[in-house]
Amino acid sequence: MNRTHTSGQLNEQHIGESVQLIGWVQKRRDLGGLIFVDVRDRSGLVQVVFNPEISETAIQVAEKLRNEYIIQVKGTVIARAENQVNPNIPSGAIEIHAQEIEIINEAKTPPFAIENNTDAGEDVRLKYRYLDLRRPAMYDTFKMRSDITKTVRRFLDDEGFLEVETPILTKSTPEGARDYLVPSRVHNGEFYALPQSPQLFKQLLMVGGFERYYQIARCFRDEDLRADRQPEFTQIDMEMSFLSMDEILEMNERMMKKIMKEVKGIDVTIPFARMDYDEAMARYGSDKPDVRFGLELVDLSETVKDSAFKVFASAVETGGQVKAINVKGAAANYSRKDIDALGEFASVYGAKGLAWLKVDEEGLKGPIAKFFEGEAASSLIQTLEASAGDLLLFVADKKSVVADALGALRLKLGKDLGLIDENSFEFLWVVNWPLFEYDEKEGRYYAAHHPFTRPFDEDLSLMDTDPSKVRAQAYDLVLNGYELGGGSLRIYSREVQEKMFEILGFSEEEAKAQFGFLMEAFEYGTPPHGGVAFGLDRVVMLLSGSTNLRDTIAFPKTASASDLLTQAPSPVAQAQLEELNLKISNTQ
Amino acid sequence: MNRTHTSGQLNEQHIGESVQLIGWVQKRRDLGGLIFVDVRDRSGLVQVVFNPEISETAIQVAEKLRNEYIIQVKGTVIARAENQVNPNIPSGAIEIHAQEIEIINEAKTPPFAIENNTDAGEDVRLKYRYLDLRRPAMYDTFKMRSDITKTVRRFLDDEGFLEVETPILTKSTPEGARDYLVPSRVHNGEFYALPQSPQLFKQLLMVGGFERYYQIARCFRDEDLRADRQPEFTQIDMEMSFLSMDEILEMNERMMKKIMKEVKGIDVTIPFARMDYDEAMARYGSDKPDVRFGLELVDLSETVKDSAFKVFASAVETGGQVKAINVKGAAANYSRKDIDALGEFASVYGAKGLAWLKVDEEGLKGPIAKFFEGEAASSLIQTLEASAGDLLLFVADKKSVVADALGALRLKLGKDLGLIDENSFEFLWVVNWPLFEYDEKEGRYYAAHHPFTRPFDEDLSLMDTDPSKVRAQAYDLVLNGYELGGGSLRIYSREVQEKMFEILGFSEEEAKAQFGFLMEAFEYGTPPHGGVAFGLDRVVMLLSGSTNLRDTIAFPKTASASDLLTQAPSPVAQAQLEELNLKISNTQ
Repeated sequence: MNRTHTSGQLNEQHIGESVQLIGWVQKRRDLGGLIFVDVRDRSGLVQVVFNPEISETAIQVAEKLRNEYIIQVKGTVIARAENQVNPNIPSGAIEIHAQEIEIINEAKTPPFAIENNTDAGEDVRLKYRYLDLRRPAMYDTFKMRSDITKTVRRFLDDEGFLEVETPILTKSTPEGARDYLVPSRVHNGEFYALPQSPQLFKQLLMVGGFERYYQIARCFRDEDLRADRQPEFTQIDMEMSFLSMDEILEMNERMMKKIMKEVKGIDVTIPFARMDYDEAMARYGSDKPDVRFGLELVDLSETVKDSAFKVFASAVETGGQVKAINVKGAAANYSRKDIDALGEFASVYGAKGLAWLKVDEEGLKGPIAKFFEGEAASSLIQTLEASAGDLLLFVADKKSVVADALGALRLKLGKDLGLIDENSFEFLWVVNWPLFEYDEKEGRYYAAHHPFTRPFDEDLSLMDTDPSKVRAQAYDLVLNGYELGGGSLRIYSREVQEKMFEILGFSEEEAKAQFGFLMEAFEYGTPPHGGVAFGLDRVVMLLSGSTNLRDTIAFPKTASASDLLTQAPSPVAQAQLEELNLKISNTQ
Repeated sequence: MNRTHTSGQLNEQHIGESVQLIGWVQKRRDLGGLIFVDVRDRSGLVQVVFNPEISETAIQVAEKLRNEYIIQVKGTVIARAENQVNPNIPSGAIEIHAQEIEIINEAKTPPFAIENNTDAGEDVRLKYRYLDLRRPAMYDTFKMRSDITKTVRRFLDDEGFLEVETPILTKSTPEGARDYLVPSRVHNGEFYALPQSPQLFKQLLMVGGFERYYQIARCFRDEDLRADRQPEFTQIDMEMSFLSMDEILEMNERMMKKIMKEVKGIDVTIPFARMDYDEAMARYGSDKPDVRFGLELVDLSETVKDSAFKVFASAVETGGQVKAINVKGAAANYSRKDIDALGEFASVYGAKGLAWLKVDEEGLKGPIAKFFEGEAASSLIQTLEASAGDLLLFVADKKSVVADALGALRLKLGKDLGLIDENSFEFLWVVNWPLFEYDEKEGRYYAAHHPFTRPFDEDLSLMDTDPSKVRAQAYDLVLNGYELGGGSLRIYSREVQEKMFEILGFSEEEAKAQFGFLMEAFEYGTPPHGGVAFGLDRVVMLLSGSTNLRDTIAFPKTASASDLLTQAPSPVAQAQLEELNLKISNTQ
C-alpha cells in the first residue's frame, strides 16, 4: 500500500505528475458518463475523475463506490477547466484522472454526513465518535491541540524544565473537590484517589531539588458536570524554584506569546496587563474580566446614599452597594419589555431588581426618574458620564450580588450589542488575590486558591488577627473573560503551613494525617518555589473558537459522566468486586 | 532572589568573575580558620570558601551552615592551587571566594546522606523520596527520562504524528490483566476501569481518520508486583494507518537510533536484525534473546533419539527435546559442586535435571559419559562443535521446559563468565509470532499478543482448522534480552474480529457486549492500521544502566502497591463510600 501524495497537498504545481492516493470517499457524482469522486484524507480533499476512455476497469470499480469507502487511486494530475475551479479548497484548480483504483475497505452509510456543518445531535456524534472525528473541523481542533502541547513542551524544554510524570494512583485528601476513588485489592478497605492536580507532587519535586518541573497532566474531579467541565481534564502544569512572581509571570507571558504565534499566527504584546483582584471586581464585577470592551460598572453608592429612592439609600445603609452600567446610546433600542427581560436575566444572579433610567435631552426618564431631580439627577449623570440616548441600568444589593448580576449583564450586553471584537485576544493577569474566602453559611474560611498558597510576607501577622485581609501571592491568567489558569508562590515553611491549616479548621491531627509528609519535607531544606497550571482543554477551546469543551477532547464524557461510545461506566463481574471485598449497598 | 550562574556551570573560564549562586550545602569543612562549603544545585557542585579576611560577616553566617541548608552566595571565581584541583567535577579547578551569604532555608539532618552511593534501605529512600531525588544520580535518571520523551516527541511530531490524549476513565474488559476499578457516583453499581493500554482508543482514532497518533500514555494493571512491575507504568504509544509492517519497523528503528544518539551519544546501526519467533526460541530459548553473546542452544534430539542414555531417548520419544549448551573452555572452572548449583538453578525453571559432560583430549568425561561412546560420542562432539576443555550442559524435557531452563541458564552463564559487553546495545526485532497460545490447563486459546492482532492473510483459513498454526503480523523489539515493547498490524474487518473472539471462547453476546462498538466501527470504512507500544520505564532503566524500575519513576509504589511517602492507599471517610453506595464487606 502506498501513497505518493496526500489529498490536501496537491495543487497546480503537480500538474502532469502521476500520483497515488489513499483516502475516504467524501462524495461521488455521476455526470455525463464520468464519475467524480472527492477523496478525503486528514490533509484535505481532491477530486478524482473516472473516465471510461481512460480506464474501463477503473470506472467499473468506481461505480461501486459509496461514501466513506476507502480507496487507493492512481492517476494523473490535470488542470481543471477554468469554469470548474473550486476556490474553496487548495486542490480546487486540479483534478486527478484515474487510471487505477482499488477498494481498500467498504463502509455502511454513516448515521450522519461527514461534514463540518452537521445537524447531528451530540449524543449521536458521541456514540459514533470515530465518525465525528472524521469531520475536518474536528481534526483541525486536535491538530491545534497537538500543536499547542508541542509548542509548550519545546518552550519549556528550552527553558530548562524537566518533564516529570507524577502518580495517578494517589492519596485522597478532604480539601477541594470530590475525589474519584480506586479501591485497593492488596489493602482491602483502603483506596487510592485520582489526583485533582499534581500539586503536592510538584512541590515535592521542588523539595527534591529538581528546580524546574513541567507536565501536561491529567487531572480528575468527581463533580457535577457543566458544559465546561469534564471528569478528566488536562493541565499544563509547572513548578519552579528560586523565581520571583515577576519572573514566573514573565516566563509564562513568553510561553503564551509563542503559542499565539505558532498556533494562531497572532503577535500578542507582552508584558500582559495586570489588574488587582479588587479592581477587577469593582470595574467588571468579575475576577476574570473580559476587557475587550467597556461597559464598566460604576459605583454610585456615595452618590445615592441619601437618595429619595429608598431602595438605593437602604442598600447603601445596610452595607450594600449601588452600581450601574451606562449602555451608551442604547436607550432607543431597549423597550420596556426588553429591559424587563434584562431584569429577569439579572435575577438569575440574585438581583432582586434591575432599576433603569433613560437619558434624553431633557434629563432622566423612566419609572424611578421622579426620585432623581435637580442635584440628584445631575450628579448621577455626571458620575455615569451619561448623555442623551444612554440607557442606565442599576443594581442595588449586597456587594457580591451587585458584582455577579451587573458583571453577567455586562457580558450579555457586550455580546448582544456586538461590542466584542471576536478576533482579538486580550490577556490579563489578575493579581493580589485574597488568601481566604469566608463562607458565611458554614462560618469558616476556605482557601481562595488552595491551602499551599503563600501569603504576602507583610501580611503574615494578619493571619492571627484578620485572615480575611491577608493577600495571597497568587495570580490568574484571564483571556477574553475566561480563566486560563493561574498559580501562586507556595508556602515553604512548616510554621506557615500549619497556621494555614489551623485557619482552615483542620485539627493538628487532621493536618498531620493528611499533609504531614509535606510539612515534614519543608524541614529538610525546601527552596522557595511557585508554579502555574493552565487548563489545556480551555486553551484549546478558546484558540479553536469552539464553545463546547467536549469538542477539544477526543473521547469526552457526557454531562452524566458517561462515555456513549464504549458504554463506560458499566457493571463489572461479581468476582471483581469480591477481590476488592466490596459490596454495592444499594443499587438505584 | 537571583543567581548569575549554576554550580555545575562554573569552570576556569569564569576566573575573575563575580558570581551569585543559590543552592544546597552539600558539605562544610572548617580548616585553618577558613570554611569550605560545597554548594550543590541540580547542575552540579562548586566549592565556596569563606575567609575572615574577605568578610567577617560572611564567615560568621557560614559557621551556622549544616548539610542541606539552602544558601545564596556572592563571591569571586578564583583558580585553585594546583595541588587542590579536583578532577572529578567540572568546577574542580576553581572555587568561589565568598563576599556575601544569606541563608534561604534551614534543614534538619537528613535520615541519609545525599550522595550517589547510599546504603540507605529502599523503604527509607521511598518514605523520604524528596531527599532521595536530590541524589545527583537520581536527577540524572530523570533528566534522561525527560530527554528520551523529548526526543520521541520531536521525532514523531516531525513524522506527522498527532499527540492525542485518550481517556483514563474507561471501560472494564475481561481479557488481559486485572483492571483497577473506579466506582461511579452518578451511575451507582457501575464502574470505570483504568486503561491497561490505549489500545481500543488508538484504533478508534485510526477509524476516525487521524492516520498517525502517538501518546506517552499512562497505563495501569492491578497485578501482583515484581521488581520490574509497577501498578502504573508509561507507554510510548503509537498507531498509524496505511503503513506496511516494514514501514512501521523502519520508522521505529529511526526513532530508536535517534534516542540512542541524543541520549547516549551512541550510533546504532539500522536496520535492526530480525529473527523469527521460532528461531529465537530454538537458538536462545527465549522470545527476547540477548544476542550480545553466543552460548546458543543446540538441538540434539535427532542425535540422541536412539541414545543408550534412556533419559535422552525417552524425552525425544515422548515428544520432548534434548538440547545443550556448549560452554567453551569452561570445563576446568566448574567443579561438580558448581555444576550441581547450575542444576538447582535450572530446576527453578522446571528442569527435572541438568545432565553434563566435560570434554578432554581423550573424549567425554562425566557421570553420563559411559552412555556416549564411539559414534555416539563423536556425533555429540561434532554437533556441539566441542573440543577439549569444553563443558556441555543438557536438558531433556518437554519443549517449553527445555527452552525456559536452558534459556535462563544461558543468561546466567553469560553473566557469570563475563561474556556480555555491558556497553553494547543490540536491538533485535522478533517477528512471525504465533497468533494464539494454547493453555493446556484451561483447555483454551489465549491471544499471544492481544485479540486485535491481525493474522497473516494466507493463514486466515487456518483459524477454522488449526488456530495454533496461525501466524500473527506482530513484532517485538528486544534490547539486550529485554522486551522494550512491540506491536502488530490490527484486524480491521468485523468478520475476522468476530472469528478471533470466537476462538478465544467469547460467546457472541459477550463479544458484542464488550467490543461491539469496535466491531461496529470496523463497518464504516476502517483503514488498515497497526501500531507499537514501548515501555518507557524499561527503556529508561536500560539506558540509565539501572536494574531497578523504581529508580526510573519519580514517585513509585512498593511491591505491595503502596506509596510510602504519601501513605496511599488509605482509608477514606464513610461519607465518601456512602456517596458511591459501596460497603466494605470484609476488612482484613
